[in-house]
Amino acid sequence: SYGADGGISSRIYADFSIFKGKAALSAAPVLPTFSKAGSGYTKVDRRGVIMLTFRPAIGERKYDSEKKQLFALSVTEVGSFISLGPGDSCEFYHDPSIQSRDAGQVRKSLSVKPYTDGYFISLSVTNNILKTNERFTVPVTTAEFAVMRAAFNYALPHIMGWAQSTSPPTDGADRDVL
Amino acid sequence: SYGADGGISSRIYADFSIFKGKAALSAAPVLPTFSKAGSGYTKVDRRGVIMLTFRPAIGERKYDSEKKQLFALSVTEVGSFISLGPGDSCEFYHDPSIQSRDAGQVRKSLSVKPYTDGYFISLSVTNNILKTNERFTVPVTTAEFAVMRAAFNYALPHIMGWAQSTSPPTDGADRDVL
Amino acid sequence: SYGADGGISSRIYADFSIFKGKAALSAAPVLPTFSKAGSGYTKVDRRGVIMLTFRPAIGERKYDSEKKQLFALSVTEVGSFISLGPGDSCEFYHDPSIQSRDAGQVRKSLSVKPYTDGYFISLSVTNNILKTNERFTVPVTTAEFAVMRAAFNYALPHIMGWAQSTSPPTDGADRDVL
Amino acid sequence: SYGADGGISSRIYADFSIFKGKAALSAAPVLPTFSKAGSGYTKVDRRGVIMLTFRPAIGERKYDSEKKQLFALSVTEVGSFISLGPGDSCEFYHDPSIQSRDAGQVRKSLSVKPYTDGYFISLSVTNNILKTNERFTVPVTTAEFAVMRAAFNYALPHIMGWAQSTSPPTDGADRDVL
Repeated sequence: SYGADGGISSRIYADFSIFKGKAALSAAPVLPTFSKAGSGYTKVDRRGVIMLTFRPAIGERKYDSEKKQLFALSVTEVGSFISLGPGDSCEFYHDPSIQSRDAGQVRKSLSVKPYTDGYFISLSVTNNILKTNERFTVPVTTAEFAVMRAAFNYALPHIMGWAQSTSPPTDGADRDVL
Repeated sequence: SYGADGGISSRIYADFSIFKGKAALSAAPVLPTFSKAGSGYTKVDRRGVIMLTFRPAIGERKYDSEKKQLFALSVTEVGSFISLGPGDSCEFYHDPSIQSRDAGQVRKSLSVKPYTDGYFISLSVTNNILKTNERFTVPVTTAEFAVMRAAFNYALPHIMGWAQSTSPPTDGADRDVL
Repeated sequence: SYGADGGISSRIYADFSIFKGKAALSAAPVLPTFSKAGSGYTKVDRRGVIMLTFRPAIGERKYDSEKKQLFALSVTEVGSFISLGPGDSCEFYHDPSIQSRDAGQVRKSLSVKPYTDGYFISLSVTNNILKTNERFTVPVTTAEFAVMRAAFNYALPHIMGWAQSTSPPTDGADRDVL
Repeated sequence: SYGADGGISSRIYADFSIFKGKAALSAAPVLPTFSKAGSGYTKVDRRGVIMLTFRPAIGERKYDSEKKQLFALSVTEVGSFISLGPGDSCEFYHDPSIQSRDAGQVRKSLSVKPYTDGYFISLSVTNNILKTNERFTVPVTTAEFAVMRAAFNYALPHIMGWAQSTSPPTDGADRDVL
């Protein structure tokens, strides 16, 4: 499995970060991976996501990366996010251990709820094994939410693989893949 | 006739699939083909489409590819699809044998109808030769529909050939086409 | 003056055409041209347009290219077009001989007016020298208009030169321009 | 620090300019810069902006570049700009000398305020050191604003670095960066 360019995918890293009093929220696209299919073409192996990272504040504009928590928005969850109307809210539930023997032990929920000047984006992580319960809430202004919406909308065909499937192959792709 | 890159078009395949209880629906862009015009430039030979594929369920998350039915959304039908407002519906009719001696014998109709949390997308295929009548209905949630709308909107200039005509030619295009 | 790829611009030609009973309307992006500026970089020499072409019908799905009339939508006119709300209309006036001795002799006006299922797009050309007055009206359905809106929105940063200025230079650009 | 292509970033320059009676307003994207991170990948070093340039009129369609004033819209300010609804207004404040000993001496404010056929975009620059106070106001029509909105929306993922991080590396990037 490899990136659409035939090598390691996404050599450039760019996120969008929002630094608030109690926590920071970063968002970055993670591209799909691809694999060869029998008949000579390449297909999506694993869909991409928009990775959300929450870090708790430990001082003025200092955030603790050791205590970060991740939430990977799927393609359909991104669709839900970018189609939120004014006053709408949404909530997603993930079990990072699904289909393993620890299924149900860790439960993550992400909620997006409107307030007067934007949305509260909250992540709650309940870990029954470690007996921990963490919660992060980041107030996202209307302007910041507009950036997220536009950036997620842009990223959507890239994490689905449609941007790659509709573009002519680059030299790199020719060389490494075919 | 060849792809915009001067070789086989779209070496990477990516679809968007929705798996529901009675049927699965997949959508994927099919790029236009191009041919040389007299005066040295390349023009669209056959416009692209968004190909919809329906497969009936034959078990839990198992779908029968042998019994799949296709519906190729044209550029204008994609325009209709992405401009559906809340509560709107649309319906398209295709005759796959048009302009052949079997014209009128097979009739496909695709309908998009709103329900409380999204749209029902249904394909009905009536085949007078085989005396068959098949119908697939897939409930598409608002979030899934938002993904389709954003992805179709992205794909539109690519299936029209505008994305190819506004991009600088790649090396591949230089080599093979000119 | 040359294209952004350092060679002839836009080697691939793709339009969007609507064939109706009395006339056909085609739209295609025309990319900007670029020229070297003193300090080593390249700048837009002439902005691009969306070229509209009208052809009168001379039989069933036959249109007379000899009698075609053109109207080049500027960047700002495209902005007006894509921001038309339901029920809105707009009208643009061009003088193809502006700043020549024939200024004012030919007058073109393009109007976009709503009807129940879409917009009428009309071109009127009054030529005082040839004593002619031509008028084309094409009924554009809501779905066709949605395609035009999405395609024009896509093309806008390309005809402005922003798509070229925000993309990494291709090999072609390196070789020919710098 | 270098551009995403591994060389000087953005060799092509394209702006969008509005020439009015008292002043001209130009907008152009400025791409982010990138730097190598420890683990072999490249990350955004400095986010890009949309640079707004105001020039006072000194005659018919003549504008004084000597007296130009700049305002660099950040990613979040662009988000605010493109999400302005009908009748909405917004205002941003910049201190170009922030975190230097002259902090607070120069104050720039940009406001976007609706009028009947569009928005007034005004820049006010108060310089306590030079004892100057300049103000530019440019009436931007609805069509011109639609161009700015569409172009800024297009530019947003490019100034954030998401367009670069989701694209396969070009040859230039391979050669110079890795």
